[in-house]
Amino acid sequence: MIQSFLVSANMSDRLAKRTERISPFYVMELLRRAKQLETDDRDVIHMEIGEPDFPTPQLIIDAGIEHIQTGNVKYTAAAGLPELREKIAGFYRQRYGIAVSAERIFVTPGASGAFLLALGISVNPGEQLLLTDPCYPCNSNFIRLFDGEAGLIPVDAATGYQLTAELIKQHWTPATKGAVIASPSNPAGTLIDREVLKQTIAAVNALDGCFYSDEIYHGLVYGGNACSAIEFSDNVFVINSFSKYFGMTGWRIGWLIVPDKFVEAAEKLAQNIFIATSTHSQYAALAAFDQRTLAELELRRAEFEARRNFLYENLLRLGFDIPVKPDGAFYMYANCSGFTDDSYQFAMDFLETEAVAITPGKDFGVNDASHYIRFAYTTSIDRIALAMQRLERFINKG
Amino acid sequence: MIQSFLVSANMSDRLAKRTERISPFYVMELLRRAKQLETDDRDVIHMEIGEPDFPTPQLIIDAGIEHIQTGNVKYTAAAGLPELREKIAGFYRQRYGIAVSAERIFVTPGASGAFLLALGISVNPGEQLLLTDPCYPCNSNFIRLFDGEAGLIPVDAATGYQLTAELIKQHWTPATKGAVIASPSNPAGTLIDREVLKQTIAAVNALDGCFYSDEIYHGLVYGGNACSAIEFSDNVFVINSFSKYFGMTGWRIGWLIVPDKFVEAAEKLAQNIFIATSTHSQYAALAAFDQRTLAELELRRAEFEARRNFLYENLLRLGFDIPVKPDGAFYMYANCSGFTDDSYQFAMDFLETEAVAITPGKDFGVNDASHYIRFAYTTSIDRIALAMQRLERFINKG
Ligand SMILES: Cc1ncc(COP(=O)(O)O)c(C=O)c1O
Ligand SMILES: Cc1ncc(COP(=O)(O)O)c(C=O)c1O
Repeated sequence: MIQSFLVSANMSDRLAKRTERISPFYVMELLRRAKQLETDDRDVIHMEIGEPDFPTPQLIIDAGIEHIQTGNVKYTAAAGLPELREKIAGFYRQRYGIAVSAERIFVTPGASGAFLLALGISVNPGEQLLLTDPCYPCNSNFIRLFDGEAGLIPVDAATGYQLTAELIKQHWTPATKGAVIASPSNPAGTLIDREVLKQTIAAVNALDGCFYSDEIYHGLVYGGNACSAIEFSDNVFVINSFSKYFGMTGWRIGWLIVPDKFVEAAEKLAQNIFIATSTHSQYAALAAFDQRTLAELELRRAEFEARRNFLYENLLRLGFDIPVKPDGAFYMYANCSGFTDDSYQFAMDFLETEAVAITPGKDFGVNDASHYIRFAYTTSIDRIALAMQRLERFINKG
Repeated sequence: MIQSFLVSANMSDRLAKRTERISPFYVMELLRRAKQLETDDRDVIHMEIGEPDFPTPQLIIDAGIEHIQTGNVKYTAAAGLPELREKIAGFYRQRYGIAVSAERIFVTPGASGAFLLALGISVNPGEQLLLTDPCYPCNSNFIRLFDGEAGLIPVDAATGYQLTAELIKQHWTPATKGAVIASPSNPAGTLIDREVLKQTIAAVNALDGCFYSDEIYHGLVYGGNACSAIEFSDNVFVINSFSKYFGMTGWRIGWLIVPDKFVEAAEKLAQNIFIATSTHSQYAALAAFDQRTLAELELRRAEFEARRNFLYENLLRLGFDIPVKPDGAFYMYANCSGFTDDSYQFAMDFLETEAVAITPGKDFGVNDASHYIRFAYTTSIDRIALAMQRLERFINKG
């Protein structure tokens, strides 16, 4: 007995210390329960899911299949297919009116791979990056992966859930290496203001820091367009992906733009940690910038906008507080303090009674998280309407 | 001028320190030159490439396409499709006669992703892992990615280019956390002996260390089979992949088996750093264990064996020394000291004059690397024969 106890104790000593600081997704518990309910034939409405419900656009599918049919699914260059890097550069010219050299663009396994690469070449153990709380949890966990510190700055409606130059200056310490923003943000769906972005980048540059801009929800903006960090400085890391706007989550493909000085290191690291991104996903993505694909995506954007408006009105009507109307992504971060002080329990109970899955605030940080839940409008308006009926019934019972 | 110099100096200060310790692939220089030669219509024979020339087996292609056609290429569970994890578990039962619970199996973006995950959950900054020199360079660079130390142990024909229990004990220091082996090895193609593997694992376990076994070339063994580390202990990390034996390099899919105590941490880290492995690659891989696919792979194995024998005889005949006849993978690590003391220059000159690309020893370490080159037999016997004619001419001129 004692023997075996000792062995276990030793074994868990073997775990890297960083694993203690990396949080699992709490929503996974909900997902597990949702699956069980579905096995029992309950009709679960999924509003916890961070991916578009639309299929991958047909031209992208066709391009992927065409490549696979050659049988020639071999490693590509580490930085990606040259023609894909060129097409991405072309997209910056066309969408943002910005010239970015293809040399600075690295194709990666999703924005996830882009973060891995960006932080791998720029963050030393003990260095801190500033981020918002709430934020997408992986972004802070990538910092911890490299034994850096996530300096979480509580934000709220006052700054549209975004960082500002003032917040940067106020929280900067000798250990701070840079700052990460995401616009539109996850979970709040809010955009950073053009001027604020410009000043925030300037503040970080003045402090000789690194600036990381997560632009994965670009394209999914309603009534306007997001601006890219690259419009204001060449000295920024831009993280983007084919996952959300382009409807390619499961293909695992995204990209990273690095400052010139980081190109060599990014190339080296990409060779070593990825070898390359999936080949067929890269060939498929070549069709993502086709005018016909973009036209289809714009229709989807309109559909997301309609869902946003519908959900927003309904949540307000039911008594949730949404301090800033979200401009983008497909999320709404709703204050539920009118109903509960424990949003996790609220989400669990709602799932159990009404079979609707939503994500508890604590998946996004600690800043008043127990009063917030995230609703994802990644399902049809009909389903959202049904979810609202169930929510109304749930609240009235409670 | 001074201003701009200062800016550059600051910028490169911003690079993470680990990037200085991570080497690029020297063979990339050769590849670039090879591409130029091909543009000039030279017929380059590629013997530098670490991937099978065979297309992905048809059933795997069909399964991948079938999934893509649904349009439903969404994120999967972080650890992979449950049915794929079960199939991999089934493969261990069938091939190795070993029961591994699917819970311990994580589907990853290649063996590369498997290493990232395994070291991410087990290596702290400053900790050392022991490996062979020569070895596959990424394996030591993954350690450096986590600010650990690659403790390279020079090995040669005496131990079949493999570690032994004695070497482990001899090189173990207070900072040592574990040891990595690869069998069949890259670049030598040599197998670790069954008894030696068993004793090596026992030695590492006795020192309370972590043992990592890179089994990516399993299946590509000629006249026998490799044994898996998992046959001797549950307390090992096994890294494997669909890339080589299964002919799926560009699909970026592999797997990792972790000890029980690491399951929770692996799950957490996989969620955060990958979200998941490419969905269509996972569906495709479901067809990898089909009896018809395995039958086709066994024909390819026979073809690789014939190439190995042919290349081995020819290199010996031409005066190269291959101290251990390789048993597996598709590499031959040949001593070229009869012709040069600078194998990199030799490879460059050979490419320039005769348009055959091979990989210089320095891509695999520092241990007598300037006297070695790696030949990959990832091209047909006809092409290998032509390469041998060119090699003979090159040597006789030199
Ligand atoms: C803000 C944000 N960044 C990055 C990602 C990573 O996405 P992917 O790796 O699929 O590109 C996500 C996914 O949900 C996200 O919400
Ligand atoms: C010994 C060894 N391990 C791991 C890998 C990584 O392969 P992949 O990520 O394609 O599975 C390679 C690729 O060449 C290799 O030779």
